[in-house]
Amino acid sequence: MQSIPTLNDIQTAHARIAPYIHRTPVLVNRQIDERAGASVFCKCENLQKVGAFKIRGASNAVLSLNDEELERGVATHSSGNHGAALSMAAAVRGATAHIVMPETASRIKMEAVQEYGGRIVYCSTDPANRQEVLDRVIAETGAHLVHPFDDYRIIAGQGTVALELLEQVEGLDMILVPVGGGGLIGGIALAVRYLSPSTRVIGVEPKAVDDAFRSFKAGHIIPVPGATSIADGLLTTVGEKTFDIISRHVHDIVTVEESDIVEAMRFVWTRMKTIVEPSAAVPLAALLTQRIHVAGSRVGVVFSGGNVDLDRLPWG
Amino acid sequence: MQSIPTLNDIQTAHARIAPYIHRTPVLVNRQIDERAGASVFCKCENLQKVGAFKIRGASNAVLSLNDEELERGVATHSSGNHGAALSMAAAVRGATAHIVMPETASRIKMEAVQEYGGRIVYCSTDPANRQEVLDRVIAETGAHLVHPFDDYRIIAGQGTVALELLEQVEGLDMILVPVGGGGLIGGIALAVRYLSPSTRVIGVEPKAVDDAFRSFKAGHIIPVPGATSIADGLLTTVGEKTFDIISRHVHDIVTVEESDIVEAMRFVWTRMKTIVEPSAAVPLAALLTQRIHVAGSRVGVVFSGGNVDLDRLPWG
Repeated sequence: MQSIPTLNDIQTAHARIAPYIHRTPVLVNRQIDERAGASVFCKCENLQKVGAFKIRGASNAVLSLNDEELERGVATHSSGNHGAALSMAAAVRGATAHIVMPETASRIKMEAVQEYGGRIVYCSTDPANRQEVLDRVIAETGAHLVHPFDDYRIIAGQGTVALELLEQVEGLDMILVPVGGGGLIGGIALAVRYLSPSTRVIGVEPKAVDDAFRSFKAGHIIPVPGATSIADGLLTTVGEKTFDIISRHVHDIVTVEESDIVEAMRFVWTRMKTIVEPSAAVPLAALLTQRIHVAGSRVGVVFSGGNVDLDRLPWG
Repeated sequence: MQSIPTLNDIQTAHARIAPYIHRTPVLVNRQIDERAGASVFCKCENLQKVGAFKIRGASNAVLSLNDEELERGVATHSSGNHGAALSMAAAVRGATAHIVMPETASRIKMEAVQEYGGRIVYCSTDPANRQEVLDRVIAETGAHLVHPFDDYRIIAGQGTVALELLEQVEGLDMILVPVGGGGLIGGIALAVRYLSPSTRVIGVEPKAVDDAFRSFKAGHIIPVPGATSIADGLLTTVGEKTFDIISRHVHDIVTVEESDIVEAMRFVWTRMKTIVEPSAAVPLAALLTQRIHVAGSRVGVVFSGGNVDLDRLPWG
């Protein structure tokens, strides 16, 4: 896929990946509605396979390759859910996934990659070294690169979240989406643009890593190197392809404080009894702190993932 | 209700409480099936109102009373989910719930009672004092006693869990239920006896508080005073009414170790991304440790509740 995904591309992606993913449920909760002053519909990608929406894009990319292309495997760099997702997607086709990860990645994330049969190749935490190691893996193995987000097959795959959500809930006024590299919000913004153009798509980002917010306001990509957040899935900077889509089809990006993310996460665990990771609680944090004017609206919120290290919870 | 609930009593209870409770989902999970070597169907009462099945019995009891009987309110002793459930059930009718709780009860549990408008009356941790305080509250207010489990209206209400589960899943070979005071397993055992007599109902209890196990084997109630467990919803001894039903209609009771309960709870959080409290993980602990022969069976498991103090998790 060499250009911005069309509606047909996203629908084709959905048909392609449907046998390998869950059609995740949409949960509602009276207490969230009361706190937000709106009708809130939570799309539970935390209940997705590998515990995150990432399996959608990874499956679409892997299933788009023919047997010959796949023969030498796939490769990516990821310290998070994309690595596990690509490993699982490759395993479905009997292919090898080479996952370049920093040596400092959490045990939980390494185990997830290994559980799905991925091959971990370690790099240092230096971005230059990470790219160097990835280049070397690809040179040595001939593996096909599947970038975590700046890839139209990935963007189309993540956009299938919106296809389902728009079928599951009618008349959404807006959809709130966490922003990391921009694959998820890019795909969702496209699908919504095609199918429900009056629905606003709003990105939410931790203030501590507000590259997408700054870039959106400035009109060009502004990295925020070295910044960190409890929302460890959102540390990456938007890519060229994703930023192009975001700047054209996303209506706004807002930011939230670290403490608001933790509170929103805890609220979901306590009230909804469903486990979301910090990154997944970021959009709800914007709602609970009234960062977005939603009174009386019908609001979709994407719970992007549920992979949490239970030994390192952000409270207590 | 002065005698053992009939099928009609349980069905009537279900019709009565249906507008006030959730019809909770049944979740399945590939990894649990693999670990257990069986098809496991989890009835998610952790997603029930007030976060536990207790709202079923409490609602049935409160809704069975006429306005005159309810005028002086209802009263109970409970350090757990029954207190919150009775408070919510009473609030639906505009009645007062007097909840006798030990001063040492957790902040979380006190807040739950207060959130639903219940009135807390403190007692000490001594059972004799608890009864004394409850008797005084009833004498002073004229409130109607709703015992947490040894009450046929409660038992009929809890039995509605099985009405739903048997509709949701066909051909269950057995249903595993945590055993505390016995209201839940008593109601389920009756409903299953009436509707699916070939399905075995098996109780699971922490070995550390194995009064039901001992009583079941001995044929008469054997309290285990002062014992404690991480499964704090299961510390009570079975009652006369519940033990009578258990001894006649439950097929077996097995016990599990404390560490197995914690591991099962963590397994559910990690793999299913749904929050269960320790008591609710007890049946699954029996499955994961092969305490029950289930190979190839279709097994129902009741996740009884999801109210956990996130600041005091049993690991880390």
